[in-house]
Amino acid sequence: MAFEMVCSRCAKRHDALTYRLACEACGGLFEIEYDAAPAVRSPGSAGTRGMRRFASTLPIRDPANMVTLGEGDTPVIPLPGIGARMGLDRLYGKLECINPTGAFKDRGNAVQVTVLKELGIKAAIDIAGGNAGHSFASYCARAGIKFVGFAYEDPLHPKLQAIAHTGAEIHRVDGDRIACFAAAKAFSEETGTLNMVYARNAYFIEGQKTIAYEIAEQFDVLPEHIVVPVGNGSVLLGLWRGFKELVTDGRIEAMPRLHAAQASAFQPLVAALDGKAWTAAPGADSVAVGIRNPAPPRLDRLVLACRDSGGEAVAVDDASTLRWHRRLAELDGVLIEPTSATALAAAELLIARGVIKKDDLVLLPLTGFGIKEPINFPELMSSALQLP
Amino acid sequence: MAFEMVCSRCAKRHDALTYRLACEACGGLFEIEYDAAPAVRSPGSAGTRGMRRFASTLPIRDPANMVTLGEGDTPVIPLPGIGARMGLDRLYGKLECINPTGAFKDRGNAVQVTVLKELGIKAAIDIAGGNAGHSFASYCARAGIKFVGFAYEDPLHPKLQAIAHTGAEIHRVDGDRIACFAAAKAFSEETGTLNMVYARNAYFIEGQKTIAYEIAEQFDVLPEHIVVPVGNGSVLLGLWRGFKELVTDGRIEAMPRLHAAQASAFQPLVAALDGKAWTAAPGADSVAVGIRNPAPPRLDRLVLACRDSGGEAVAVDDASTLRWHRRLAELDGVLIEPTSATALAAAELLIARGVIKKDDLVLLPLTGFGIKEPINFPELMSSALQLP
Repeated sequence: MAFEMVCSRCAKRHDALTYRLACEACGGLFEIEYDAAPAVRSPGSAGTRGMRRFASTLPIRDPANMVTLGEGDTPVIPLPGIGARMGLDRLYGKLECINPTGAFKDRGNAVQVTVLKELGIKAAIDIAGGNAGHSFASYCARAGIKFVGFAYEDPLHPKLQAIAHTGAEIHRVDGDRIACFAAAKAFSEETGTLNMVYARNAYFIEGQKTIAYEIAEQFDVLPEHIVVPVGNGSVLLGLWRGFKELVTDGRIEAMPRLHAAQASAFQPLVAALDGKAWTAAPGADSVAVGIRNPAPPRLDRLVLACRDSGGEAVAVDDASTLRWHRRLAELDGVLIEPTSATALAAAELLIARGVIKKDDLVLLPLTGFGIKEPINFPELMSSALQLP
Repeated sequence: MAFEMVCSRCAKRHDALTYRLACEACGGLFEIEYDAAPAVRSPGSAGTRGMRRFASTLPIRDPANMVTLGEGDTPVIPLPGIGARMGLDRLYGKLECINPTGAFKDRGNAVQVTVLKELGIKAAIDIAGGNAGHSFASYCARAGIKFVGFAYEDPLHPKLQAIAHTGAEIHRVDGDRIACFAAAKAFSEETGTLNMVYARNAYFIEGQKTIAYEIAEQFDVLPEHIVVPVGNGSVLLGLWRGFKELVTDGRIEAMPRLHAAQASAFQPLVAALDGKAWTAAPGADSVAVGIRNPAPPRLDRLVLACRDSGGEAVAVDDASTLRWHRRLAELDGVLIEPTSATALAAAELLIARGVIKKDDLVLLPLTGFGIKEPINFPELMSSALQLP
């Protein structure tokens, strides 16, 4: 299947034979357009599993090139304990946290790294340090692509150690996330190495579409609400694109309402949906480390995804996030990252506001494997466990 | 389907209406016998996934009771990088590390905790601290069963923190693994709480059978060799039981050769296969923390599983384990626990000994998610990553 890069701002079309980050005419970010509405099909042969099943709907030239670690086809499980606590009869979780590197990022990287491989790219730069970096480093290792990562995080953090373990070249940056982006850009200009910028390219989001395809297979009746944490917003955008394709394809009649969860210290989408500008307070921080993003690159599209699907955006405070983080482990046996728990806190708010009703079918993509972040909240430890 | 507990030593039969750990007559450990050879079938409906598909082959009265977190149906991926390095053309990994809590233990606990639930048990004791404890705590939380765990590990270890996060009651023991078993036993006698002893009961191993069922589905031609780390040996025993059932069922003609990997400091099975007695050296230790087991409770059965399948047992040193641990991340993008990497080190030895040949199809169950253990080998970190 052929595909082109289309500017999401000026609609100018570009070929897909080059790695493209932004429109040559106006600098806008791309979306990918296929020459035919992708025909999303159920599993073919018993041997095919995960993302490879959907290769024909992705910006990949030859499915045989696919760089895969077995991502996708994540289970959906009921969350009866949390559901009872929230007063919901039908609450489900989709365990994106048990993708190969423990995060939904693997879907995006399976596509992104395959694109790099198909374009013959031998090395790529990006910020590192979090789940995206760990995932990208793993897929690059598998593809034989050299990853040069820029990180400001504590080098003893398990994620950074995991990245180093793949043999990636890691540069420590004295500063914050913005400083890492700047260092990556400078290094790219200096060395001619491709600056991939997963947060801005169009390939990564395509991988997230497959969550929607799987949801459509896993539910006889689609959920009425899906609540997702939003930093860059690739899960929300992927769901939106995927469900739109399924509607076009005639496989579903209408899409679920896609709601966004943000941390109260980083709520650009909540503000934008309200028609307001937004800037983070100096030194703003959150336990939801994965969505501490003051300026999502595709903010306009996120607004559209919420409006188009009838979704809302809510901001939740850290105390609520940590409460639900703990409750999910205690009531339903699932340990996720605090970032992922913002979706639970947001669901609680949406119920209180009457947006989600008791009888509604609600799905939460549980995005990150809990043990990847320290679970170091001593006040939560059993009193029988004597901390040193 | 009805089932009974049969003593593996004196063959005395006991009903399954009580939680049973050991034979009333002779103290031998149990195996479970079904009234008919379980009919192992391929997936039924699209909505059924994972272990639930195999409920009819497990010691469970009603599949509706099954306590599940979406375990099972783990992907098989080729390991071309490691394969090339070892000189193997066809090497595969089965990602047991992306079960819900990051380890193969989830299969055993889905069964074990369902049994507790069906028997109406409200609280259970066991040692905690490792992958088994983390998994058991999660399934207990889901089933509403109180878990009382005994651990000697560092309370800041992520696994122990994850266990505490489920609301389990954790008792710190000043001592080693043996001391934890003793403390658990004493607490059980004092309080009347069930001492589950996952390492000795027969239910846990039944869950591991399902790995064999899935392998039979995932390969058109079965692997000739499967190499697994052996501590208690539940994966090896589960594979053996599962493949035996498939042979009985007529679905396969012969089983793969099941080889055991042990750490050189803990090699009771290697010795037993050689007809020798074995004791650990004082203070023996290994980076393969999950298989530091000087006395597997089912050693006789492990010997039988190897002999019956034509498998061997080899001991590997820590340096080799860490080398392959690193190489797997670097060459194929998969980060596992050092414990799991003993299987790679063992495969290398089996090739050197001529047991595994270049053209053979080899499968390695990759048992534990890498980030659950600290990856703190500073000598492996990129020089560009400045450690503090």
